[in-house]
Amino acid sequence: MASLFLCRQLTPALQHNTRSLLSFHRYIHQNVYEYDGPVMKTEVPGPRSRNADAVNFFCDYEESRGNYLVDVDGNRMLDLYSQISSIPIGYNHPALVKVLQKPQNLSAFINRPALGILPPDDFNVNLKESLLSISPKGLQQVMTMSCGSCSNENAFKLIFMWFRKKERGLNMVTQEELDSCMINKFPGCPDYSILSFMGGFHGRTMGCLATTHSKAIHKLDIPSFDWPIAPFPKLKYPLEQFVKENKDEEARCLEEVEDLIVKCREKNKIVAGIVIEPIQSEGGDNHASDDFFRKLRAIAIKHGCAFLVDEVQTGGGATGKFWAHEHWGMDNPAEVVTFSKKMMTGGFFHKDELRPDAPYRIFNTWLGDPSKNILLTEVLNVIKQEDLLNNAVHAGKILMDGLLDFQVRYPHLVSRVRGRGTFCSFDTPDDVTRTNLISQTRNKGNIIYV
Amino acid sequence: MASLFLCRQLTPALQHNTRSLLSFHRYIHQNVYEYDGPVMKTEVPGPRSRNADAVNFFCDYEESRGNYLVDVDGNRMLDLYSQISSIPIGYNHPALVKVLQKPQNLSAFINRPALGILPPDDFNVNLKESLLSISPKGLQQVMTMSCGSCSNENAFKLIFMWFRKKERGLNMVTQEELDSCMINKFPGCPDYSILSFMGGFHGRTMGCLATTHSKAIHKLDIPSFDWPIAPFPKLKYPLEQFVKENKDEEARCLEEVEDLIVKCREKNKIVAGIVIEPIQSEGGDNHASDDFFRKLRAIAIKHGCAFLVDEVQTGGGATGKFWAHEHWGMDNPAEVVTFSKKMMTGGFFHKDELRPDAPYRIFNTWLGDPSKNILLTEVLNVIKQEDLLNNAVHAGKILMDGLLDFQVRYPHLVSRVRGRGTFCSFDTPDDVTRTNLISQTRNKGNIIYV
Repeated sequence: MASLFLCRQLTPALQHNTRSLLSFHRYIHQNVYEYDGPVMKTEVPGPRSRNADAVNFFCDYEESRGNYLVDVDGNRMLDLYSQISSIPIGYNHPALVKVLQKPQNLSAFINRPALGILPPDDFNVNLKESLLSISPKGLQQVMTMSCGSCSNENAFKLIFMWFRKKERGLNMVTQEELDSCMINKFPGCPDYSILSFMGGFHGRTMGCLATTHSKAIHKLDIPSFDWPIAPFPKLKYPLEQFVKENKDEEARCLEEVEDLIVKCREKNKIVAGIVIEPIQSEGGDNHASDDFFRKLRAIAIKHGCAFLVDEVQTGGGATGKFWAHEHWGMDNPAEVVTFSKKMMTGGFFHKDELRPDAPYRIFNTWLGDPSKNILLTEVLNVIKQEDLLNNAVHAGKILMDGLLDFQVRYPHLVSRVRGRGTFCSFDTPDDVTRTNLISQTRNKGNIIYV
Repeated sequence: MASLFLCRQLTPALQHNTRSLLSFHRYIHQNVYEYDGPVMKTEVPGPRSRNADAVNFFCDYEESRGNYLVDVDGNRMLDLYSQISSIPIGYNHPALVKVLQKPQNLSAFINRPALGILPPDDFNVNLKESLLSISPKGLQQVMTMSCGSCSNENAFKLIFMWFRKKERGLNMVTQEELDSCMINKFPGCPDYSILSFMGGFHGRTMGCLATTHSKAIHKLDIPSFDWPIAPFPKLKYPLEQFVKENKDEEARCLEEVEDLIVKCREKNKIVAGIVIEPIQSEGGDNHASDDFFRKLRAIAIKHGCAFLVDEVQTGGGATGKFWAHEHWGMDNPAEVVTFSKKMMTGGFFHKDELRPDAPYRIFNTWLGDPSKNILLTEVLNVIKQEDLLNNAVHAGKILMDGLLDFQVRYPHLVSRVRGRGTFCSFDTPDDVTRTNLISQTRNKGNIIYV
C-alpha cells in the first residue's frame, strides 16, 4: 500500500465564497483575488517547464493566487497540498502584499538583525502580536529559529540541559564536565537520548535525523545516535470496525515505550525526552487516538522525560484547531512544541522551567527573522478575520465525505481514508497506482502529494 | 589573555568618501546616505533600552544607515563588527531599499516556495546572478540552506554520502544497509566522522556541535559524537619574530592531523572529511599561515578525506578577498565551501563529484529562501560597483597600522595584533580589561565585539 496525502489546506477552495469578497489589488491582475477554478493548457510538466531530480515543475508565483498555483506554461492548478504544507493562506494574499508595501516594514526586510544580541525596538510587541498570541497551553516562552530542523535540534538541546539540571540538583557544574564537553566526552556530553517513533519525521540535520524514521533515503550513509525507537500504532480502518484491535495496538505501543525507557535507564542511556508528531505526516499520515497521546503524555510525566510535540507540519490550522495537539484536550500537553512551515518562521514554545540558565546556551547568529514574524502577524489576522479554523473543519467534513464515498465506489483504488480537518489522506494499492493517480489528478488541475 | 574582535567590516567608515556620493532616498531622512560620525546621547544601554541575557541593547533599524547602528535612545554608533559579521553592506543601503520597492520582486517576499520541488520561473537566472557568480574555484554546484548550521550539517551529509559511494565502489546498496539505517545502526549508518580542530566553531546543531570546540557553554550537557579533534596552531606574535617557532607549531598540528586519520582508520572509525575555518573566528580569531592550509589540503587529498572550508564568518569580502581561502592561492582548494551571514542565505558550494546520486537525499522544505538571493544579487553588485574588496584591503591596512601603533604605545592593554583585510583583532591581558575596553569604546560610539 502507498499513502497519498490529499490536502493540507487551511483555505480550501471548496469554499470559494469565503474569498471572493476580498478587494481588488493592483498587483493582482484580475478584479477578484481568487481564481474560479483550474485551467490546464498543457500536460504537467509542460514544454516551458523542466523536471529534474525532485523538481516537479517551475512556477509563476506572480500569477498564482489564493489556492491556485500557476506554472510557467500557464497551467493553473488547485494546490491542495499548499507546497509542502508550507503556504498558510494561499498565494499573493492581498493582506501580505500590503505588509510589503508599508514603508515602516521595509527596514525589517533589508536589515536582518542578530536577534539575540541586537533586537529591533518593536520586537517584543511584534512577538506578542504574532507567536505569543497563539502559544499552546502552559507554554509561555518562545524562541524563533530559521527552519523546522533547527527548531527540533534546539528543542532537543533545551531538553538535555533541563534534564541535566534536574539530575545535577544542587551540585555545581564540575571542571571535569567543562573540560570533557570540549572534546565531546562524558560527563560533559552525557549519554542522553530522545525517544522517537518508527515512521516519525523530525528533520534531517544530524540530531533530528536520529529521530526520523520514515524513509531510508533520508538516513542511508549518515552516522547516527543509538537512541531508542518505539513502534507507532498501525491503526486499521474504518476505525469503527476495529475498535478492539486498535485499542490493543495502541496499548502495545505504549507498553513498548515504557519498556524502552526502563531498559535504557538500566544501561545508563537515559531518555531525556520523547518526540512525537500529533499526526505522523511525512511517514504516511499515520494517526493515533487522542487517548493514545494522553496516555503517552502520562508516561513522559511518570518517568520525568520532557514531552516534545513536533507541530512543524500539523501546526497552523489545517486540522481544524490551530495546534493539532489541542484535539487531545489537555491542560498540560507538553514541555515543548516546535513549529515551522505555515508559521513562516521556525521556532518553539516551551515551559518556563526549561528556560536556559545562562545566555548564549541556545543561540545562533540570526535566531529567526523578524520580517517573517511581521508576515505571520498578518497571517494570524487573516485566519481570525476569515474564520479559517472553522472553514477547515467545515471543508474537511465535505472532503472526508467525498473520500469515503470514493472508497465505497472505488475500493480497488482508495482505502484507509483518514484525516482531521482538511489534513486528509488515503492509501492506494501500490506505488504505480499512486503515481498514476497523482499525475492524472494534476493534469486535471489538482496538486496532491505523495 | 582575552581576544577582542575589532572589525568585520566590508564598508569601513574609515573611508567615508566611498559612500557620500550615494543619492538621496525617500526612506532615508537625511540628504546623504551615510552619517558622518557617531553621536552619543546616553550611556549604552540607555534608559529606553534594556539588556537582559545576551541582548546588548534594542535598535532603531529605520534610523540606522551605512556603518552606523542607532539604538532606541538615539545613540548612533559605528558598528565595526557589523552585528555578528552578518550585515554585508551596512544598514538600509539604497540599493536594497530599491529591491524591496520593485513590484516584480514582491511575489518572492510573500510566496516562499518549497524550492526543491516547485522553484520559481527565474530561479536559475537568479542563482547565476547571485551565488554562481562568486563560486569558488572548482566548485560549480551550489545549494541554498536557511542558516549556517544547516549548511554545515548538510555539507557533512554530502561528504558522508560521497565517501560511502567511493567505498561501495561497484557494489549496490544492500537490503541490510537499508534496514539498519532506519534504526540508526551499522552498516546503514556507518561509523564515519568529520575531523575538526580545537577552537573551531561550525554551528550548534548536533552534527555541527560535534565539530565545534570554542566555548564549553555551547556544548555542556549535549550528547555528542566521538569524532577526532586536532590542535589548531597557536601562533606567536609578532609573526616576524617567531618564524621558526610558528613553523614548528604548524608542523606539529599537521602531524597530529595525519596521525589521527591513521589511528581512526585502525579503529574502523573512518575520517570522511576535515572541516576548518580559514580564520578561527568565534574561537578567538586564530590565524594560521597560507602554507599550513595548503599542507592540510594535501593531507586531505592523500587520505581521501573531503576538505570542507567553512566560510560562514570569513566569506563575503572582509578579508580583502571574497573568500578567505583565496589567500591560499590554490586551484583545488576544497571539496565543499559553506557560507551564511553576510551572504544573507546559508548554503554550500561543492564539486560535481559530490552531487547526491538520487533526489531527496539532501533536501528540506524550504531549501533557503529566494527572496534572500534577490537581495544578495544586489549586494554583489554593490561590492563590485563600489570596489569594496579593495576598500577592505586599503582600510584594513590603515586599521592594522593603527592597532600596531596602539600595541607599541599601550603594551599593557594591546597585544597579539592580527588580521587580514579589516578582519582584525587583538588580545587584552584579561577579561576585566576586555569588558571595560568594550564598554568604554561603545560609550564613545564604536561597537566592537568579544
